[in-house]
Amino acid sequence: MSESLRGFTRTCYCGELSSKNIGQEVSVCGWVQRQRDLGSLIFIDLRDRTGIVQLAFDDNTEKSVFDKAFSVRSEFVIAAKGTVRRRASINDKIPTGEIEIAVTELRILGEAETPPFEIIENSPVKEELRLKYRYLDLRRPEMQRNIIARHRIVKCARDYFDENGFIEIETPMLIKSTPEGARDYLVPSRLHAGKFYALPQSPQLYKQLLMLSGFDRYMQIVRCFRDEDLRADRQPEFTQIDLEMSFADEDTVISVNEGFIKKVFKDVLGVEVETPFTRLPYAKAMELYGSDKPDTRFDMTLCDLTDLARGCGFKVFTGAIEAGGSVRAICAKDAFDKLTRKELDKLAAFVKDYGAKGLAWTRLNGENTSSSFAKFVPEETLKAMYSRLGAKDGDVVMIIADADNQVVFDALGALRLEVANRLGIIPKDKFNFLWVTEFPLFEYSKEEGRYVAKHHPFTMPAEEDLDKIESDPGACRARAYDIVLNGVELGGGSVRINDPKLQNRMFAALGFTQERAQEQFGFLMDAYKYGAPPHAGMAYGLDRLCMLMLGCDSIRDVIAFPKVQNASELMSSAPSTVDEKQLKELHISVSD
Amino acid sequence: MSESLRGFTRTCYCGELSSKNIGQEVSVCGWVQRQRDLGSLIFIDLRDRTGIVQLAFDDNTEKSVFDKAFSVRSEFVIAAKGTVRRRASINDKIPTGEIEIAVTELRILGEAETPPFEIIENSPVKEELRLKYRYLDLRRPEMQRNIIARHRIVKCARDYFDENGFIEIETPMLIKSTPEGARDYLVPSRLHAGKFYALPQSPQLYKQLLMLSGFDRYMQIVRCFRDEDLRADRQPEFTQIDLEMSFADEDTVISVNEGFIKKVFKDVLGVEVETPFTRLPYAKAMELYGSDKPDTRFDMTLCDLTDLARGCGFKVFTGAIEAGGSVRAICAKDAFDKLTRKELDKLAAFVKDYGAKGLAWTRLNGENTSSSFAKFVPEETLKAMYSRLGAKDGDVVMIIADADNQVVFDALGALRLEVANRLGIIPKDKFNFLWVTEFPLFEYSKEEGRYVAKHHPFTMPAEEDLDKIESDPGACRARAYDIVLNGVELGGGSVRINDPKLQNRMFAALGFTQERAQEQFGFLMDAYKYGAPPHAGMAYGLDRLCMLMLGCDSIRDVIAFPKVQNASELMSSAPSTVDEKQLKELHISVSD
Repeated sequence: MSESLRGFTRTCYCGELSSKNIGQEVSVCGWVQRQRDLGSLIFIDLRDRTGIVQLAFDDNTEKSVFDKAFSVRSEFVIAAKGTVRRRASINDKIPTGEIEIAVTELRILGEAETPPFEIIENSPVKEELRLKYRYLDLRRPEMQRNIIARHRIVKCARDYFDENGFIEIETPMLIKSTPEGARDYLVPSRLHAGKFYALPQSPQLYKQLLMLSGFDRYMQIVRCFRDEDLRADRQPEFTQIDLEMSFADEDTVISVNEGFIKKVFKDVLGVEVETPFTRLPYAKAMELYGSDKPDTRFDMTLCDLTDLARGCGFKVFTGAIEAGGSVRAICAKDAFDKLTRKELDKLAAFVKDYGAKGLAWTRLNGENTSSSFAKFVPEETLKAMYSRLGAKDGDVVMIIADADNQVVFDALGALRLEVANRLGIIPKDKFNFLWVTEFPLFEYSKEEGRYVAKHHPFTMPAEEDLDKIESDPGACRARAYDIVLNGVELGGGSVRINDPKLQNRMFAALGFTQERAQEQFGFLMDAYKYGAPPHAGMAYGLDRLCMLMLGCDSIRDVIAFPKVQNASELMSSAPSTVDEKQLKELHISVSD
Repeated sequence: MSESLRGFTRTCYCGELSSKNIGQEVSVCGWVQRQRDLGSLIFIDLRDRTGIVQLAFDDNTEKSVFDKAFSVRSEFVIAAKGTVRRRASINDKIPTGEIEIAVTELRILGEAETPPFEIIENSPVKEELRLKYRYLDLRRPEMQRNIIARHRIVKCARDYFDENGFIEIETPMLIKSTPEGARDYLVPSRLHAGKFYALPQSPQLYKQLLMLSGFDRYMQIVRCFRDEDLRADRQPEFTQIDLEMSFADEDTVISVNEGFIKKVFKDVLGVEVETPFTRLPYAKAMELYGSDKPDTRFDMTLCDLTDLARGCGFKVFTGAIEAGGSVRAICAKDAFDKLTRKELDKLAAFVKDYGAKGLAWTRLNGENTSSSFAKFVPEETLKAMYSRLGAKDGDVVMIIADADNQVVFDALGALRLEVANRLGIIPKDKFNFLWVTEFPLFEYSKEEGRYVAKHHPFTMPAEEDLDKIESDPGACRARAYDIVLNGVELGGGSVRINDPKLQNRMFAALGFTQERAQEQFGFLMDAYKYGAPPHAGMAYGLDRLCMLMLGCDSIRDVIAFPKVQNASELMSSAPSTVDEKQLKELHISVSD
């Protein structure tokens, strides 16, 4: 039978007590971490969100209190009053380890069955079980730390942008579906039979309209929804730090956001981040790292060997080059021992996932040098290649050739990361930021047989590329920028089009008919007629930012109630079936 | 043709300039409020979110700049650089009225057609047009003020609760549908054919689980959704300030929240609110005001005349009393002139909307006294009634009798407000807060033929009423509380049940079978097995709080992109039809 809290007032949290409080009478509440019964002595470790404190019961404890302490089990919720005193045996593993509370009053507020797993740090429990009993998992110290730190990150973001004149404005969640972009979550309307709302993939249109409304600087920390097949780091609902600025270009947006990153890392982690961050054009990022979100915590950059390989006689290389492709390589320093032939076979299989047909390699080691391709290539070409790569004895050279340059970049970029991980050369304590800029404006979608917007249809083209929108869309660069941290895209944005004529050219280049553009974005195009300021903005993936800042392996560890890969929530079993009556009211029925 | 911003840096906002800046070179951006062409002189009023400043062009202005200024029209977006100087003729209506900017550089950043309505304060435009062109409506000074003030209110809430140890934690938006309560918005699942998510009506279950997880103090400013038929002050999506506290009872919650109200009114409005607020039990609120959200800015309280009317001979009164009802009245002081017979006829019609069968009245004025019922009632009974009401010559007495006490309260409560409005006796500058407490735990739903939870099924019954849950549910009081401001329910909450056995009794009293309770709330009931702390919480309607603080008539005036009564958004025309392909992927089809 649980007791009432009536008349009991907590005076402090468990983790706040120290030897400074010795002699004071205090009242604490929390969960029993464990109870130790030593016969004439009972100790209870009491846990709340701040830490653990020891409650002590001994010969001097009133019998009814002692007996109650005897009955207490792990995860019981209790309240205790008593006097802080120095411990007999000091525990320097916990901050309150010098003291204990000699309890004079004890209340059992809630009893507990034995939980399905123990509430401890680094619990070796399967994630599925953790998520089913998320309310217990969240009691574990690292989950408490993560969720509380996320609060601090979010608070810091709001403080920073507020101080810099940004106004948080809420945009609607029940909006119009636009087929451009990812798949929408839909919400059937009861009052409008056969019509649907969509949940926002981002507040893009609304924040641009707010700029047209003169709010000048907008921010919002906002839930967004994408009904995509989930990868490890995706959730069907996720949170963005979303912002937009009028009378601003990329330099203003970048500098405001470098200020934010500097502040949030300093305030929450105590880490000094150096600004400004390097800006790397997309083309350069591809050339050096084979990636538009390069991890720059280590080198091992890509090296173009195309000119050297031209006419070398090795069909794999020359065939790729003649088809308009390239031959590129990385050099893993001092990797001779670790990258054995067996390992290289595995890496050859690895790059096939990225479309590469094979992996050419050389393990350099004087007379013990071995190579998968050297015998097909003249000695002097090999020498020139190794020399350009700076490859010495003990190094391993890995080369990819393909008719499709993008395959070379993708495969070699992925290989670079994979090799670095296997060699363990990525420093874990570094935060390496950079901006990737000058993204392509369009990318060609083979599936749809047309160019689609790489960022979104409202992105401003580079001034120099304005005349190529129709004639050479593939060569147009966008005034878009991504912020990358340790190889992860933290966020991105762009300067937006604010000229209705240019916007119409973009829609046309994306293959929209006049009617379709009008139907989908008519209200936006109308809005642009009445005075649209230059504006630019960006958005961060908050879950990712928290994950990286807190050193977690999964975004699920920074979300209180996440969903799993199949978009279900294991605790409540959402989604679920609903009453036929509900569907009827919404004018829909389930089909096969 | 619009010009680029390149090389132009804004140095200040328009509204920030004053005579202190005279002689300085400044750069401003914004929208043209109006352009006045006086021949050799041109003035442009430039507007941004801070206010308006005058740009001046004269004989000394370079010709190309002057010509450009000549071409500028209302709502053009421009950037201007120049020197601040004292004006020839001072305008004390605006804060920058002493100065103007003698412009040396002018850029037209965006042209504008003539907007469908003028961007001015108190525009006499129909709301439908305002909402269709919301991006223009939001440019109007009062909408800018409202949205910016809402940001301040929200920021203040976050600061306050953070300072008081509350952690903002995001709860999911795609959750499980629970038929209890209002109608859910549903979201069909693509990956789970035939299953649906619901959008949250509130984060109730999740915040209680967070208490079970040990987060101790939670808050969130969160979007909620209810698919109800909309009344004037409802939106299908609305925002709550939501909070929950462990090891807390109603006193703790109330005192923390009085602190919040005090701070937000002081910081945002500069208004000192006196705390603590009056606490009025529900039964008393009904008796005095006929309402569970009384407007206490004026008196005119209800007066029970049942004992006096008993056996008076007037069938309307005696019939009501004999059927278990009551006879109650209000007295409108000095209303003789305003509440004519014709007005009283209208009020009689008004109370019928609340179920009353009629209105008995007396207009007291010596020999000119008139009454709808006096001739049926003995003189001494009348005297006793008027005396209890404190009614004097010049006053008007209004009486309602009904067999159903609730009808008497509802009708007389509504009449009290209506009369006060007609008499203009409600002071507009007062903020009168109070807590209404001791709500009924259940209310009987005729529609469903069972008791339903008045607040929600997790509300703790009053300790004294615990044994009446099964035997006399109608008499059980809840440990629930509403905060009321000027007759509007701003928010409410309760102490929650933290004992699984008591929770099961509640579910049973609400007519849930064991299976249904398990299916709907099984995960919550499971959670309660592992140590549930006492907890209590509440939630505010943020839109209503903003509306009342900012003196708006509608919550639509404090929401950037609101929906109208039929739950559509006039600007984007959401909801809309979607592609058949989208529905097919979601395994649903539209039915009749």
